Amino acid sequence: MSSSLTRPVVALTTGEPAGIGPELALMLAATEKRLPAMLVAVGDPQMLAERAELLGLDIKIEVTASGSRLPQPRLGVLPVWPVALRVPSHPGVLEPANGAYVVETLDVAIAACRDGHAGAMVTAPVHKGAIIDGGHTGFTGHTEYLRDTCSVDEVVMMLATDAALHGRVAGQPRCALRVALATTHLPLREVADAITETRLERVLRILDGDLRRHFGIDAPRIVVCGLNPHAGEGGHLGREELEIITPTLARLRDQGFDLEGPLPADTLFTPRHLEGADAVLAMYHDQGLPVLKYAGFGRGANITLGLPIVRTSVDHGTALDLAGQGVADPGSLRVAVRLAAEMAQRSG
Amino acid sequence: MSSSLTRPVVALTTGEPAGIGPELALMLAATEKRLPAMLVAVGDPQMLAERAELLGLDIKIEVTASGSRLPQPRLGVLPVWPVALRVPSHPGVLEPANGAYVVETLDVAIAACRDGHAGAMVTAPVHKGAIIDGGHTGFTGHTEYLRDTCSVDEVVMMLATDAALHGRVAGQPRCALRVALATTHLPLREVADAITETRLERVLRILDGDLRRHFGIDAPRIVVCGLNPHAGEGGHLGREELEIITPTLARLRDQGFDLEGPLPADTLFTPRHLEGADAVLAMYHDQGLPVLKYAGFGRGANITLGLPIVRTSVDHGTALDLAGQGVADPGSLRVAVRLAAEMAQRSG
Repeated sequence: MSSSLTRPVVALTTGEPAGIGPELALMLAATEKRLPAMLVAVGDPQMLAERAELLGLDIKIEVTASGSRLPQPRLGVLPVWPVALRVPSHPGVLEPANGAYVVETLDVAIAACRDGHAGAMVTAPVHKGAIIDGGHTGFTGHTEYLRDTCSVDEVVMMLATDAALHGRVAGQPRCALRVALATTHLPLREVADAITETRLERVLRILDGDLRRHFGIDAPRIVVCGLNPHAGEGGHLGREELEIITPTLARLRDQGFDLEGPLPADTLFTPRHLEGADAVLAMYHDQGLPVLKYAGFGRGANITLGLPIVRTSVDHGTALDLAGQGVADPGSLRVAVRLAAEMAQRSG
Repeated sequence: MSSSLTRPVVALTTGEPAGIGPELALMLAATEKRLPAMLVAVGDPQMLAERAELLGLDIKIEVTASGSRLPQPRLGVLPVWPVALRVPSHPGVLEPANGAYVVETLDVAIAACRDGHAGAMVTAPVHKGAIIDGGHTGFTGHTEYLRDTCSVDEVVMMLATDAALHGRVAGQPRCALRVALATTHLPLREVADAITETRLERVLRILDGDLRRHFGIDAPRIVVCGLNPHAGEGGHLGREELEIITPTLARLRDQGFDLEGPLPADTLFTPRHLEGADAVLAMYHDQGLPVLKYAGFGRGANITLGLPIVRTSVDHGTALDLAGQGVADPGSLRVAVRLAAEMAQRSG
């Protein structure tokens, strides 16, 4: 892996060019003195330079090639692996023609990670609709694109707040959380049928394995939510806990996994259960993420587990309505970059 | 309403006698100097006296009759409206024969509220299984029992954290929340079909009306969650927002309701949306309560809206394993009593 002074190269795809991604990358380059990464943006150098000028940011865009040696990180300098926009981009205005550009930035970053030119990739938000309208009709999201491009069967979405990165879990559960999801972007009425023993076992194996591999945790302790309110209350409020979740956890415990649950979600997210837990597994999106976002607003990042490469992401969208104004908060991007760098170092 | 020095009478049913309810009532009487209520416990006076002795609490149990004048509140004195245990009760040991006793304490408190002898009732936890095994086979919970006894068609469950009581909502969304539920104790796979226009409208009318009536809010602002992740993302992740929730909100807005949403649950529970909101309406149990419990652990209480009387409750269970040890935390009960008193005063 190309790195310098033990700092891993982190490739940041700047995402939808009409959104806040480009300016967040610039704001990070303008303000962040102590990134534990050799950060390189992937995007259109001219667009980035124009956006810096629009925002009054004094940033030097330094075009370089993937695989060549990166300059030492300096405040106000943003190295860029260039990808050319298909048509000019203006803040807030989607151009489907640039969908192919956005996808190409992903391909560049993925290839760099797979070839060892980068230790991790971080993604700024993309706009699914623009990519689909631009001709990539099968595009359903970053995570699925990475899964398919890396040829793995299943990935796991996990969100983490900043404090979790810095070992402040014990005694400060209010600020430190890692929440993984057994299912992600499914209509609520499809969730119950999607919770199968097969899926749960695969998700728990990925979660346990990547907590060891990327987070340096020797024996991860995972707390698992039930599917139903009160975790089914002994079968009175649903039988998935009795028939699917509990037997799966028992089988994995026999194989050495350290699992607690299934617990009621509204009991689990309290200090008694969070202290000592390395991650929570929620059964579905809105069971786990509202707490995470509440606890870590602006200090959370999204991590894709189960890939052969390290990938993190901001936990927000393109915010087209804010783009070009310099008012967007780079807090989540900062966390995503730090987290990617730490994961890359542990895995390197 | 019988009250003294503007403090309303609050009838506290002490709940399952083998659980922590009795000792929480005693702990409150032993420690709380400034309750804004004339608190009266409903339960077996001898059991309460024995439990006080077991815990080494110096509490005088003062038996009185519903409707007679209560003594001025004094630290160390607990007035009791007596209901006789059917068989002796010991901490941690369920006796189904006492199920009828528990239900009778509820009947006494409900009657007192309806007759004007109390301004509100607060319930300590009951054990559903013990009540059912004791012969009340149709008992499905406090809330349903109150609904049926008070002959109303629908009630709404709302949880509130302590800070919400004291007007610290603005600027401190991290500590102040009110979360009402459109559905409560349903298996997850039944939730989507339960979200109908009829139900949503009834729930929102009750929520809006009771925020005015019991909380003194002139024009309640209610923020409403979507059902699906990302609130359905324009129909890509479920159509209930487009077909049911959005049209219902539009119709009620036309009638003067101040409603925001439907919003993604993981976006909604952030300062931007919580500031200025008087309550959140979540579509189901585990969408709304994990955040509430996380934010307000030990400082939250449960409120039943839509009843002709005021009723609040602790937000925890009987904790049979802790009963009789004096280690249970009366924090939620304190909040429930304060909240009941404030609601009673506003409604009085």
